[in-house]
Amino acid sequence: MSKKNAFYAQSGGVTAVINASACGVIETARKHKDKIGKVYAGRNGIIGALTEDLIDTNKESKSAIAALRHTPSGAFGSCRFKLKSLEDNQREYERLIEVFKAHNIGYFFYNGGGDSADTCLKVSQIGEKMGYPITAVHVPKTVDNDLPITDNCPGFGSVAKYIAVSTMEASFDVASMCATSTKVFVLEVMGRHAGWIAAAGAMASTDDHEIPIVVLFPEVEFDQKKFLASVDEKVKKFGYCSVVVSEGVHWPDGRFLAETGLKDAFGHSQLGGAAPVVANMIQDGLGYKYHWGVADYMQRAARHIASKSDVDQAYATGKAAVEFALKGHNSVMPAIKRTSNKPYRWKIEMAPLSKVANVEKMMPKNFISKDGFGITKKCREYLAPLMKGEDYPPYKNGLPKYVTLKKVAVPKKLDSFEI
Amino acid sequence: MSKKNAFYAQSGGVTAVINASACGVIETARKHKDKIGKVYAGRNGIIGALTEDLIDTNKESKSAIAALRHTPSGAFGSCRFKLKSLEDNQREYERLIEVFKAHNIGYFFYNGGGDSADTCLKVSQIGEKMGYPITAVHVPKTVDNDLPITDNCPGFGSVAKYIAVSTMEASFDVASMCATSTKVFVLEVMGRHAGWIAAAGAMASTDDHEIPIVVLFPEVEFDQKKFLASVDEKVKKFGYCSVVVSEGVHWPDGRFLAETGLKDAFGHSQLGGAAPVVANMIQDGLGYKYHWGVADYMQRAARHIASKSDVDQAYATGKAAVEFALKGHNSVMPAIKRTSNKPYRWKIEMAPLSKVANVEKMMPKNFISKDGFGITKKCREYLAPLMKGEDYPPYKNGLPKYVTLKKVAVPKKLDSFEI
Repeated sequence: MSKKNAFYAQSGGVTAVINASACGVIETARKHKDKIGKVYAGRNGIIGALTEDLIDTNKESKSAIAALRHTPSGAFGSCRFKLKSLEDNQREYERLIEVFKAHNIGYFFYNGGGDSADTCLKVSQIGEKMGYPITAVHVPKTVDNDLPITDNCPGFGSVAKYIAVSTMEASFDVASMCATSTKVFVLEVMGRHAGWIAAAGAMASTDDHEIPIVVLFPEVEFDQKKFLASVDEKVKKFGYCSVVVSEGVHWPDGRFLAETGLKDAFGHSQLGGAAPVVANMIQDGLGYKYHWGVADYMQRAARHIASKSDVDQAYATGKAAVEFALKGHNSVMPAIKRTSNKPYRWKIEMAPLSKVANVEKMMPKNFISKDGFGITKKCREYLAPLMKGEDYPPYKNGLPKYVTLKKVAVPKKLDSFEI
Repeated sequence: MSKKNAFYAQSGGVTAVINASACGVIETARKHKDKIGKVYAGRNGIIGALTEDLIDTNKESKSAIAALRHTPSGAFGSCRFKLKSLEDNQREYERLIEVFKAHNIGYFFYNGGGDSADTCLKVSQIGEKMGYPITAVHVPKTVDNDLPITDNCPGFGSVAKYIAVSTMEASFDVASMCATSTKVFVLEVMGRHAGWIAAAGAMASTDDHEIPIVVLFPEVEFDQKKFLASVDEKVKKFGYCSVVVSEGVHWPDGRFLAETGLKDAFGHSQLGGAAPVVANMIQDGLGYKYHWGVADYMQRAARHIASKSDVDQAYATGKAAVEFALKGHNSVMPAIKRTSNKPYRWKIEMAPLSKVANVEKMMPKNFISKDGFGITKKCREYLAPLMKGEDYPPYKNGLPKYVTLKKVAVPKKLDSFEI
């Protein structure tokens, strides 16, 4: 049995383009049938591996797999489930290897963010230790854009485009209404610790059409007085103002503006509701009529306005992951390297997982303007190419034609396993 | 001075396609230079007429006017300002006629909803009375889709498309996450009294891909127990559920779920925040993890995903308004008449303003499903064509290329006027 099967799983919050990476993995594996047998996908991510709930992607047609490229969300299901450390839970890692062994799986492609990179690294290490070597390659994905080494993360460019477009459109709207009605529009965006997505909101203001935008970054301690003064100055000058507030914005004592007290499976605080908090401040402090929106899942699922750069890179990293594995590289991740800004050019390089796992890339200090409420030219130059190009999905009866897979289960061979 | 100028103004909340109507009015007027002189636009709507703050649209290039077709918001500025009744405020109506007289304006094109139709009708009546006849034609516009006689209202189809696409995309997202994380997504949409926009959310579920969606209509008294039971049933069956809640949903005693206590210039209650109220109910009553979004201005400004039917109709009503006026019709409105559903065909007819003003069209009872949480086949057949077709704006550097007009002021001839 020299020809091994592959396992692919989606992890954590899904994006508009994570399925494009899945498409890259599966299409590339199908081109190398001499070396890779079947691609099994984990139903609901790594949980599918632990419970031996595998999906046989060979049962999906060529056109269905191709359609993953334009379908948002995680087609095989994702999960928020972090494997504990090897010391604390060797049982789960051993189970993974047991399942891989039972299904002749020699390749492990894990599509996620920083936590998943760590899991990917550990799977490779435990396989080695248990005498069942696994070629583990991480496929980067996160709207938070916080993975190190790679210039940017697949998933982010499309959120950035969605937020920039939405901020532009809503700002045009407020500008039309501000003489007698709404003067401030507040948009809440994702980003717990890094302000990459919030920064994208500032891209709505261009040389062709200046828009007054105040950005609230999680990297900058919230200063209510300075903030209100900045909004007031813009309303007095332009007649209106837009505010883009990251869900992760916090007070000097560390409390989030939107704190709810809940935590998710990774131990992260559950956030939501910074926009109404900020909007009420504006009403109370300045008396301006406001409107507020919360982009929530819409921003990361908005495949209809995905960035072409992002779709291309998501596909390319999936493809490269398989190619790296076939060349015998282990515990690595395809990283995006920007080789030129104008015109935008990029290539895929290889990053060792040991340098990726558990490292969070913040916004560089010189990307945030001195007053803390905007972005610098450097940031603009970084963000612009990532939002470049449109890549519309096909439509049917006015709605995007997203694919739904059959998701046929692979027959189980092992006893059940309690997570 | 047989050749009269025209006055055009945008009223109330703007939309993704109100500028397409402006484009229709101006381009059509420019084709009839023998009969219509200049088109003056009111800066910030009717306030521009009262304050004699007119914009000379002749100063805008052909390409700038053409670009209005793909630019959201109100390019000339809109306003929330309702003229009082003739008895209560004859002074304002007389001022309008005075301004029209001073600038040789014989045509009044007013682009708005029900309140504006009423103003349009009164302007025509007072002109007659004051011996300065004005040909007043109303151009329909409202995302609320609540004008009578016309099959649908320009502005609505694009919001419907945006909400259906967003609900579909966010639902795909939740479906991927529901095994271990979010099980319910709540999206708040506009619609104070009529549930047209909320109904569009249900269109996200198609024959190709069923999505469990619970819709909360303003037409249906909110029943918390029944609502939670419906959500629970869907989560148990599908693993997840999406909720589309109209801002106008209210308790049996009439209080809005999202009541804030504020009122706008038209005396309408200012709403916001139904989504978090509903999400908290789900958390408390069912214990499911939720996410919520508020589409707010994004939904009505989303020109990037406008419906082609809607753009075409917005333009056609603007064009027809000028043609009606040139034929000598007064106090009328171009109405959309659906002549066939499959294939979708429509034409423009003429509706008398006396039958349009101050009449609010609600959702027909047979459009809402028996349980009160969904839409019927009849509703589906009505909505589908309105969302049909894509009409993408041009892009530059990853962002839509929306036009900003010069908005050159017409020199004033009269004394100033206090509103």
